Amino acid sequence: MRETLADWRPAIDEAIADLVPRDIDADYLESFFGPPTYEYDPDGIQRALSTPLWDLLDRGGKRWRAVLFLVFMEGFGEDPAEYLPYACIPEILHNGTIIVDDVEDGAAIRRGEPALHRVYGRDIALNVGNAMYFLPLKVITQDPADLPAGRRLAAYEMLMHELNRTHLGQGVDICWHNEREVRISTDQYLEMCACKTGCLGRIVARLAATITDQPAEVEAAIATYAELTAVAFQIGDDILDVENSLGRAGEFGKEFGNDIREGKKTLLVIHAMGESEPVRAQRLQAILEADENTDDEIIEALKILEDAGSIEYARERALELAAEARAAIDGLDFDAETTRKLEEFTEFVIERDE
Amino acid sequence: MRETLADWRPAIDEAIADLVPRDIDADYLESFFGPPTYEYDPDGIQRALSTPLWDLLDRGGKRWRAVLFLVFMEGFGEDPAEYLPYACIPEILHNGTIIVDDVEDGAAIRRGEPALHRVYGRDIALNVGNAMYFLPLKVITQDPADLPAGRRLAAYEMLMHELNRTHLGQGVDICWHNEREVRISTDQYLEMCACKTGCLGRIVARLAATITDQPAEVEAAIATYAELTAVAFQIGDDILDVENSLGRAGEFGKEFGNDIREGKKTLLVIHAMGESEPVRAQRLQAILEADENTDDEIIEALKILEDAGSIEYARERALELAAEARAAIDGLDFDAETTRKLEEFTEFVIERDE
Repeated sequence: MRETLADWRPAIDEAIADLVPRDIDADYLESFFGPPTYEYDPDGIQRALSTPLWDLLDRGGKRWRAVLFLVFMEGFGEDPAEYLPYACIPEILHNGTIIVDDVEDGAAIRRGEPALHRVYGRDIALNVGNAMYFLPLKVITQDPADLPAGRRLAAYEMLMHELNRTHLGQGVDICWHNEREVRISTDQYLEMCACKTGCLGRIVARLAATITDQPAEVEAAIATYAELTAVAFQIGDDILDVENSLGRAGEFGKEFGNDIREGKKTLLVIHAMGESEPVRAQRLQAILEADENTDDEIIEALKILEDAGSIEYARERALELAAEARAAIDGLDFDAETTRKLEEFTEFVIERDE
Repeated sequence: MRETLADWRPAIDEAIADLVPRDIDADYLESFFGPPTYEYDPDGIQRALSTPLWDLLDRGGKRWRAVLFLVFMEGFGEDPAEYLPYACIPEILHNGTIIVDDVEDGAAIRRGEPALHRVYGRDIALNVGNAMYFLPLKVITQDPADLPAGRRLAAYEMLMHELNRTHLGQGVDICWHNEREVRISTDQYLEMCACKTGCLGRIVARLAATITDQPAEVEAAIATYAELTAVAFQIGDDILDVENSLGRAGEFGKEFGNDIREGKKTLLVIHAMGESEPVRAQRLQAILEADENTDDEIIEALKILEDAGSIEYARERALELAAEARAAIDGLDFDAETTRKLEEFTEFVIERDE
């Protein structure tokens, strides 16, 4: 294993470039997509696919889904470098969802630069985002690890299962944003996270288990680990938005309170609605459902969350989930180094400050 | 086989409703998507998924991809009614691409009513469109026809191959719309159609062949038939837009010349650019690349296409493609009734007037 996890990034990007080269030519198109019936237009495919994809990837991102996959592979006694094409699967899928999410939300900025649909147009951005849902799944067919047919089939069935649930989670999350009332339970919120964010984590784990033909209980254990870690990460995101907003509120020119402005029904909001006095709960709901808010209203909503103890509550839930994630892999046969890396992942997702 | 092809529509819609019921409840969610980790929100999934999907389907559509699949199955000596879940695969995929295309184009109307993103918001529309890319692929896993594992794997590999090419075709088509110059060749145009429209046809044919375990040459022949028929259909679309526009131009309140207004590089445009005098070709290009056009300019562009003989040229090419499609299945062992139905499909796509 490389010294630190970040060392993998150049190798991961090289593997992605083997799937979608920075420069598209007819030879690549013929080998990846099969011979044309008539004649490909490499120039058009360059601009429709490769240029926007690499624009997004070159802006950064930690590639942690790919790295987590490689950690699992090493934990299963394999040489991770031999499985880099598979590591690209969750990574390209994830970046595809980012592009599509940004179109859905009408987001302005992504990784410090204008969102892709603002650079290339909504049509190109959407199409490349969707293409990224199918491009990496070709790796299973290309079969660089020379897997038996049964495992390739299991990989496809797993991917279809998890990608279906991803869209369920995204669907209800959007629905809740658009609803006025806060009507959902904590368990429904956690389910949304488990589907929307957790399923991509499950893909990372289950792909590693499928390729190395692990027993069902090992696959289930690491899938649970990855799902719980992803849910904790999502809650960490919600906490960060509130904490950074409380820190920034009133600072000139700084955006704050984005989740409140979008009317997001986060775990903190669900908690505060149940724990606040009725008059304050109603006030929180009114601010969330308004189409526009003043800065003072945002500060008022943040205070309601703070006073209800919702930040501490959410942090405790995230810590519990991270502990459950570690417990899920406790009985497994991983070496001490792999276990340490996997534990570090569960800590990182809560303790990060950006 | 039912008396006429249209008779299949109720049975097809029932099969789609088995995959995505009109009314979502927790039992369906658990059986289709697996048990939740925490708790599903059936109400949210109703509004994010089922309601918009059925809104679109209930507006009409001929379900001809599903019908074509059933014709193939009968041609292979199977009882089509037993394979209805598989017939839903290309049909749901196709309707998903319609929703996404409408978001990409910013379309106002679909099947006589406001496009889905205008009814439910861009976020819900996009997510349901994308969900429809994965929902039907679950049928292969559910395996109602009890296929051996090898054929299920072949079906997934085929679907990934064709869906990747679909996004290539859509990508270059968008690219060309956004370009000012008409720089593409006839073969590149036909390739775009073969990818964008043809691959969904190929899925219809190859799925029927895979399920019934046809020899490779039979699968290739019916895939070619379906691809060529779909390309002819696309050219038929381009011709209809011009012919209807020439008929309607000047009629009060009627839209006309949509393809020209969008700057679409159709087969007719590519032909006219090559066949017109330089001064008229330049004029056509100038009208296509303008952000806005007057009605007189649209009529001028339509006249350039008409004078260059581009309508006849495109019709001849479409007829050639339809003849090639019929020739592709000529050597196959289909009964006379199946052959007649397959030939009818190739005629319908060119001779329709809407």
